[in-house]
Amino acid sequence: MAAVPHVVIVGGGFGGVEAAKGLAGADVRVTLIDRRNHFLFQPLLYQVATAGLSPGDIAAPIRSILRRQDNATVLLGEVVSVDPERSVVSMDDHSELSYDYLILAAGTRHSYFGNHGWEEHAPGLKSVEDALEIRRRVLMAFERAERASSEATHDAELSFVVVGGGPTGVEMAGAIAEIAFKVMRRDFRRINPEHARVILLEGADRILQSYPTSLSRKAERQLRKLGVEVRTETLVEGVDAAGVDTSGGRIETRTIVWGAGNEGAPVGATLGAETDRAGRVVVESDLSISGHPGVFVIGDLAAARSGGKPVPGVAQGALQGGAHAADCVRADLAGRPRRAFRYRNKGELATIGRSSAVGVIKGVRLSGWIAWMAWWLVHIFFLISFRSRAIVLFSWSWSYLTFQRGARLITTAWRSAPSDSPH
Amino acid sequence: MAAVPHVVIVGGGFGGVEAAKGLAGADVRVTLIDRRNHFLFQPLLYQVATAGLSPGDIAAPIRSILRRQDNATVLLGEVVSVDPERSVVSMDDHSELSYDYLILAAGTRHSYFGNHGWEEHAPGLKSVEDALEIRRRVLMAFERAERASSEATHDAELSFVVVGGGPTGVEMAGAIAEIAFKVMRRDFRRINPEHARVILLEGADRILQSYPTSLSRKAERQLRKLGVEVRTETLVEGVDAAGVDTSGGRIETRTIVWGAGNEGAPVGATLGAETDRAGRVVVESDLSISGHPGVFVIGDLAAARSGGKPVPGVAQGALQGGAHAADCVRADLAGRPRRAFRYRNKGELATIGRSSAVGVIKGVRLSGWIAWMAWWLVHIFFLISFRSRAIVLFSWSWSYLTFQRGARLITTAWRSAPSDSPH
Repeated sequence: MAAVPHVVIVGGGFGGVEAAKGLAGADVRVTLIDRRNHFLFQPLLYQVATAGLSPGDIAAPIRSILRRQDNATVLLGEVVSVDPERSVVSMDDHSELSYDYLILAAGTRHSYFGNHGWEEHAPGLKSVEDALEIRRRVLMAFERAERASSEATHDAELSFVVVGGGPTGVEMAGAIAEIAFKVMRRDFRRINPEHARVILLEGADRILQSYPTSLSRKAERQLRKLGVEVRTETLVEGVDAAGVDTSGGRIETRTIVWGAGNEGAPVGATLGAETDRAGRVVVESDLSISGHPGVFVIGDLAAARSGGKPVPGVAQGALQGGAHAADCVRADLAGRPRRAFRYRNKGELATIGRSSAVGVIKGVRLSGWIAWMAWWLVHIFFLISFRSRAIVLFSWSWSYLTFQRGARLITTAWRSAPSDSPH
Repeated sequence: MAAVPHVVIVGGGFGGVEAAKGLAGADVRVTLIDRRNHFLFQPLLYQVATAGLSPGDIAAPIRSILRRQDNATVLLGEVVSVDPERSVVSMDDHSELSYDYLILAAGTRHSYFGNHGWEEHAPGLKSVEDALEIRRRVLMAFERAERASSEATHDAELSFVVVGGGPTGVEMAGAIAEIAFKVMRRDFRRINPEHARVILLEGADRILQSYPTSLSRKAERQLRKLGVEVRTETLVEGVDAAGVDTSGGRIETRTIVWGAGNEGAPVGATLGAETDRAGRVVVESDLSISGHPGVFVIGDLAAARSGGKPVPGVAQGALQGGAHAADCVRADLAGRPRRAFRYRNKGELATIGRSSAVGVIKGVRLSGWIAWMAWWLVHIFFLISFRSRAIVLFSWSWSYLTFQRGARLITTAWRSAPSDSPH
C-alpha cells in the first residue's frame, strides 16, 4: 500500500465522476470502479431510445474523462459488497480492495414493486443497452404492424404504453408520439402510423409531480396536443407480453416502457446502514453513514436531506454530492472540520416532444418554446465534451429541420414475429 | 394481385437498394425484403468496429431511403428459400410471396472453411452487431489486461490477431494498431498499451492480392511502420478461446478478427442453379440464372463474369449489378432486348491507419497521403445522406486532430473476467 490515503469510488455516473474530479491534485490515490466503461449523460438517454441520438453522442469512456488526472485509476468491474468494519470492498471475481475512504455512487435500478415478471415486458431506461432495447421494440412494433395479418394484432402493435409520468415518462411519451405521427409518416405502405396510440399512465392525479401544479397542467395539455393520451389516477395492476392491466381497464399493447419507480442498487444494503423503503441509504448531514465517517453515499443511492427536505435523485444532486464528498476528504486531510451538505436547486426542465417544454429555473416558471430553448441550451452546455456538443447540436438541428431521426436503427436481425403468438 | 408485374428484391445492401431505385417510376410493384431495417455502408464498418464512428453514422433505414418511391414497399423479414418453378419466395414465418421478377441480392457470410467452432472465437465483420461485438472485444481486452494478475495473461490480452490480408483485414489491423499505440496511450495506469501486439495473418505471399504487387509491398511497409506484424504465407490451423494455431506456431491471444473468406448466403443454394465452391450462384451474361430469365442474382452472391473476368464482390460490383437488373426488367417491359452486364472498375482503395492508404483509381496507382485523401473524399462522397456525410466528416476531422475516438463504448456491463479461465 502507498502511504497516501486510498479513496475508492464506486460508480462512474454524475456523482462518482464529480467526486473523482474533486480530488484532482489532492494527496490521495483514487480508484474509480464501474461495471461499464463509460460515463453516460442520462438526461439525454431517452433520445437514444427514440432514435434521435447515437449512444456514442451522449457517452464518454470514464478513462478518457480522467486520463489527465494522475492520481486516478479506473477499473472496469463490479463491486458486490462493502465491509465497513474491515474497510474493504469485494469485487465480482472475489478479489478485495481496501480503502481509507469509500464514496458509494452506485445509483438506482428500476423497481417493479416486487413484480419481477414485469421487467421482461416493460423495460426501464437506465443504460445504453436499455435504450437500444427500447428503440428496437418501438421500431420493431411498426415493422410487425406492417406485416400483421389481423386488425387486432395491427392495433396492438401500434399501441405504446409509457408507465410513470415523471420527466423520463413525459419525454419518452412525447418522443414516441413524434416518431409515430411525424417521422414515420411516409415510411410505410400498408399501415398508417397515424393510427398509433401513445398512452402515458400515472398513478397520481397529475404528471410531473415535482413541478408546480400549473406546469403539470401545461405539460398535460402539450402532450395531448401531440396526440398522447394522458391517464392520471391510473394504477398498473398487471403486465404481460400482450398488454397492461390497469385500474381503468386493459390495454392491448406489445410495447411498454417502464418509468414508474426506482430502488437503490443492491450494494447499498451491504453497508449495514439504515435504508429507506426504496433501498436508499440514510446518510448524515455530511453524506457519510452513521458510525463510519470514511464512507460516503451520494447520488440517488443516498436518502440525503438538505434544509429539512429530501435531496432529489437527479443529476444536480449527484454532482453536488460528489463535489461535497471530495471536499470532506480534503477537509479531513487539511485538518479542518467538514461542512454539512447543502443542496442548491438550480432548476429543472422536461421536454415534451418538439419545440415544447416545462420547467422552473431559479424560481421562474417556464413553458412552451422558451422552456424548450432553455432545455436545449442547458443540455448542450453540460454535455461532457466538445465533440459531443457539436454532434448533438448538429443532430438536433437536422432533426428539427427535416423531421428525420438519424439513428433509426434496429441492430438485430428480424426473427419470426412474436406479435401473432405473444407467449 | 395487381395487374402490374411484381418485382421482389431480397437484400437491402448496395445491390438491392440500387435495383429498387433503378425501378423508380417504372410500371411495376417493388417489394424489398431484408432481415434488417437498415442499409449499411459496409466499406466503413471497420470504423465502427474500431470505435471511430457510431453505427448510426453509416447506416440508414431502408424505408427512409425509399420513402418517396411510391411503387416500392419495404418488408422486414427473412427469405429462407426460393422456388423458381412456382415463382415464389418463402419467408421465415412460412408465408409465401409470389413474384414476376426476383432480384436476389442476399450477399455473403463469413466462411470458416468448415470449422464451425472457430466463429465464436473469431467473429467476422458483416453487420452492425458484428462491429459492436468486435469493438467490445478489442476494448475489453485492454480492460482485462489492466486487471490481469499474471504476466502471461496480460500479454495474451494485449495480443490482437487479424486473419486475412484483404482490404478489411488491412484496415482492421491498421485501426487496432492506432488504438493501441496512439488512442489508449494515456488512458491506463497499470498497463502500457504500447506493449500491445497486432498481428496480421495472410496465407498467400502478399497482402491485398487484388492490388498490383508494388502496392502490396507499400501497404506492408506502412503497416509495419504502424507497429503491425505482417505474417504472410501463414495458414491458420486452429482457433480457440486462448489463441490461434498457425503454420508458423501458436499465438496466445484473446481477440481474433476473421476476414479470411466468404461464402454465399444459404438462400442462393435453394435456387437450384449451379453454384461455385464458395456457394455463389453462377449467372448468365445478363445476371439472370439459366432457364429462369425472371430471376437475377447480383452483388457478391453472384459468380458473375464480365469481359471474361470474374466480377469482384465489392460495393461497385453490387451497385452496377443492381442497376443492370433494373435495366433488364425495364427492357422486358419496353419490349427491347436485354444487354449483357459489363463491369466497369472505377478503382479501389484501402486505408492503412491514419494518413496512409494504397489504391488504384482509373489505372493510376496511389499510395501514402494522396491515396488516403482520395479514400477519404470517395467515402464521404458516397455516404448515403447529407446528415451522415456531415457527421462522419466532423468525427474524422476531430479524431485526426485529437487522436481520440469518440465511440469508445462497451455497451455491455462487465462480467467476471473470462481471461483467467478461458474455457
